[in-house]
Amino acid sequence: MNYVTNKAGRKIPEEINGEPVIPYMGVGGYRPSGNRYGPPVSSCRDYPPDGNKLVDSLREALERSGLRDGMTISTHHHFRNGDLLANQVFDLAHEMGVRGLRWFPSASFPCHAHLIPYLEDGTIERIEGSMNGPLGKFVSEGKMKGTGVLRSHGGRYQALQDGEVNIDIAVIGAPTADPFGNANGLYGSSACGSLGFALADSRYADKVIIVTDHQVDFPCIPWQIHGNDVDYVVKVDKLGDPAQIVSGTTRITRSPDRLLLAELTARFCDAAGIIKNGFSFQSGAGGTSLAVGEYFKQIMKEKGIRARFARGGSNRYLVSMLEEGLIDYLLDGQTFDLEGVRSLAENPNHVWTSPFTSYNYHGKGNFAGLVDVVILGATEVDMQFNANVVTHSDGYLLHGIGGWQNCLFSKTVILPIPLFRDRIPVLRERVTTLCGPGELIDVIVTERGIAINPLREDLIEATKNSALPLKTMEELKAEADRICGKPYGPLLDDRVVAVVKWVDGTVLDSVNQVQSTL
Amino acid sequence: MNYVTNKAGRKIPEEINGEPVIPYMGVGGYRPSGNRYGPPVSSCRDYPPDGNKLVDSLREALERSGLRDGMTISTHHHFRNGDLLANQVFDLAHEMGVRGLRWFPSASFPCHAHLIPYLEDGTIERIEGSMNGPLGKFVSEGKMKGTGVLRSHGGRYQALQDGEVNIDIAVIGAPTADPFGNANGLYGSSACGSLGFALADSRYADKVIIVTDHQVDFPCIPWQIHGNDVDYVVKVDKLGDPAQIVSGTTRITRSPDRLLLAELTARFCDAAGIIKNGFSFQSGAGGTSLAVGEYFKQIMKEKGIRARFARGGSNRYLVSMLEEGLIDYLLDGQTFDLEGVRSLAENPNHVWTSPFTSYNYHGKGNFAGLVDVVILGATEVDMQFNANVVTHSDGYLLHGIGGWQNCLFSKTVILPIPLFRDRIPVLRERVTTLCGPGELIDVIVTERGIAINPLREDLIEATKNSALPLKTMEELKAEADRICGKPYGPLLDDRVVAVVKWVDGTVLDSVNQVQSTL
Repeated sequence: MNYVTNKAGRKIPEEINGEPVIPYMGVGGYRPSGNRYGPPVSSCRDYPPDGNKLVDSLREALERSGLRDGMTISTHHHFRNGDLLANQVFDLAHEMGVRGLRWFPSASFPCHAHLIPYLEDGTIERIEGSMNGPLGKFVSEGKMKGTGVLRSHGGRYQALQDGEVNIDIAVIGAPTADPFGNANGLYGSSACGSLGFALADSRYADKVIIVTDHQVDFPCIPWQIHGNDVDYVVKVDKLGDPAQIVSGTTRITRSPDRLLLAELTARFCDAAGIIKNGFSFQSGAGGTSLAVGEYFKQIMKEKGIRARFARGGSNRYLVSMLEEGLIDYLLDGQTFDLEGVRSLAENPNHVWTSPFTSYNYHGKGNFAGLVDVVILGATEVDMQFNANVVTHSDGYLLHGIGGWQNCLFSKTVILPIPLFRDRIPVLRERVTTLCGPGELIDVIVTERGIAINPLREDLIEATKNSALPLKTMEELKAEADRICGKPYGPLLDDRVVAVVKWVDGTVLDSVNQVQSTL
Repeated sequence: MNYVTNKAGRKIPEEINGEPVIPYMGVGGYRPSGNRYGPPVSSCRDYPPDGNKLVDSLREALERSGLRDGMTISTHHHFRNGDLLANQVFDLAHEMGVRGLRWFPSASFPCHAHLIPYLEDGTIERIEGSMNGPLGKFVSEGKMKGTGVLRSHGGRYQALQDGEVNIDIAVIGAPTADPFGNANGLYGSSACGSLGFALADSRYADKVIIVTDHQVDFPCIPWQIHGNDVDYVVKVDKLGDPAQIVSGTTRITRSPDRLLLAELTARFCDAAGIIKNGFSFQSGAGGTSLAVGEYFKQIMKEKGIRARFARGGSNRYLVSMLEEGLIDYLLDGQTFDLEGVRSLAENPNHVWTSPFTSYNYHGKGNFAGLVDVVILGATEVDMQFNANVVTHSDGYLLHGIGGWQNCLFSKTVILPIPLFRDRIPVLRERVTTLCGPGELIDVIVTERGIAINPLREDLIEATKNSALPLKTMEELKAEADRICGKPYGPLLDDRVVAVVKWVDGTVLDSVNQVQSTL
């Protein structure tokens, strides 16, 4: 395999899975050409005149879709760790003797460890998509035949839109659907809220199968997935495990350390003048992020401030802010709990979004740049604010990119991170895997101080007289190293097991096989 | 010019405007190949990082979009006869000295007679789209340089989707929009309800300009047009004349003749067993169609029947049925009055549709086939139930196709038509222009009797013992001819001034120049 060093100084293969790659050229450095992909022209002459696309089984739908060796099969991850569908799809493929498939999920979860035997026996050649937990370990150990490709949510949309990846068959689990294929995620026992991650699949896949466990008469309202994009509809008993799809209660962290990070983050935003009337924010559904939201809420209530919108995954905390009038609109990318599902179904100001609206870098703009402040995580950060979100410092690929890269285009990007985890420092000379260029990352909040990217002179100026514990990256790193000792790099083999794409489809970094400890 | 005779027996040119055509091959006879069109890949690098796409004027937006000779410019017709925008676009083009444009409206109205001087001086080379009233007369008299192309609403979507027509610049009037380009038609002084006819333009045009007279902060909710498809946003004082955009009151016909047609139509549907629980219907916003709806309402109330959905243009009559619980869902293609606009904004069961959902023949099905009964008009019908909807019997092109052709795929198609208009019989040996194949048209309702298409043995059987005045087409025609005398055909020249496309993009018929009466 030949390698090339890209603009970020990272060594990447010249081709991946037999196809040439475009090396990362810097933020905004790559200018795409050509036209978006258009799926094959279909005709109503080939679809049931009465619109009834029901077939008897998922197997029949796969057969009619022409499932065969080497195809690309996609699924969405709105059922999270409660997904029963993706596993069934590959059980059937295996049963049918199909081999060499590319699985193109919007994300994978520990429940998909079920697929490891199919990666081993050649049913699945490779996964392109996040490989959390067990699948990531499998890949890191060099056991997957093909090379993994990690894309952000926006990058996945971009890859489909631009024809970089063609899905042969999209299998879309739909908590509610009609026989024409109109579908939403709002009702039924597998209700998961928004189905936004399946939008690109429904638009760009050659064949689209809707699988539902809650069939309604036409028209299924609202139709987040348009039946006009759908080939077959299958009724099954159960799409997923409701308890694992949405949690009954999302929970704010109780860890004093993480609460401190959250509080410092909120105080920073306040001091920097970010929390003001009409502002907007995005923070995740993790315990720390939820806590940041609650501190925002306190500040907003105290000062009588109202946000124009919050973006990101919805949960009961954001719903309560919407319902209390602290936020005008909730722009929802994925719905994390039952309160989120209820609100999305009921409240016209709680609006679903998709990677197309929010993240696609090859659109005519996207929502990311309109968000005033975004709170993200990271596994490692270096002195230039470059960050890693997919591998741990031991080299294991344990997380997906999600919307993380896409959110870096927000006006202010803050990473609240502990200085060390399990006595392993988070601040590094060099991140194991580069996922986000430091020029887009503005602030690091740690329990021992806050570092502002020198590029953000405005933020430095705005907070210079605050009581915040402002430090340089170097000071923070020295402190961590004093406590933990100077960290070692991971032990990696030469073999590239996966690559990390940038939001524009170029290759930002490689993930190498972790050295066997034998 | 060379001609060919298509499957419908109609003589059509082998090429139109320099491009070869595909002759009509019968209903479902043409199998398309190739892929859908994808517009050029864009990149966020070329759009404002903060999402603010406002430019100072429509002229600036047109200049930045690269307006030049020979381009295709599209507009939508949701402002109907109150549209001020399309005229402004071509005023500017004329001012800028641009020539040879193709105007690709979703429909044109009498207010667009303003553009006749630009058709004369070469600013506009041709119109592809309906040419109602004065523009139709202009074309019929052979005064337009290029050949007109008439498409149904669904055919227009198909042509864009399949890349048969590429829009260079779409100018989309939006009653409400934010600076990112998200837009809807629900609020503001130019509120027009749904913007569904602009959907294809926003998706497939190379450059998309949103023009609004009611700017709101991001996010404009709901976003029927996605800002992610938009290049520039322009704020103007006034998009249209509100009184001409939506009527304060749509009105049921008071003509006793037309009321009789409406009553007979409703009675036929009742006798045929079409009006039953869970049924669906579509009827237009013309006086007779509205009256059919009111008769339906009476029957439904008497019998305690509830419809699953009504499709088509919305108006206060349909809104009242929705609000009274007689219809579960109103699937709205265009919003005809203020009550329709109010309901669409307020009621989650009043849902906008688009030519993509409802009419596109090159989709994976569309809604038309799911509608139990559709009530349409016609200018002429022949003995095989073939019908004309664009020209009058004198040959003048005075109407667009609208959704008419698309609706023919509904389960039962009924044309309530007078036997004669101004002593000119509507039933003919041969229709002047063929717009709809008779095999798709089921019933003709006239004031002197009802004729059922012999292909519909089920309807003949269902109504044979009814008290309805059932007759054959031949009987009805003989009656009309007895009263009016045998009709003459129109006096037409050889020159083809426009063609009528079928829903699949093939050419169904030609429209010839009307002979000068000099």
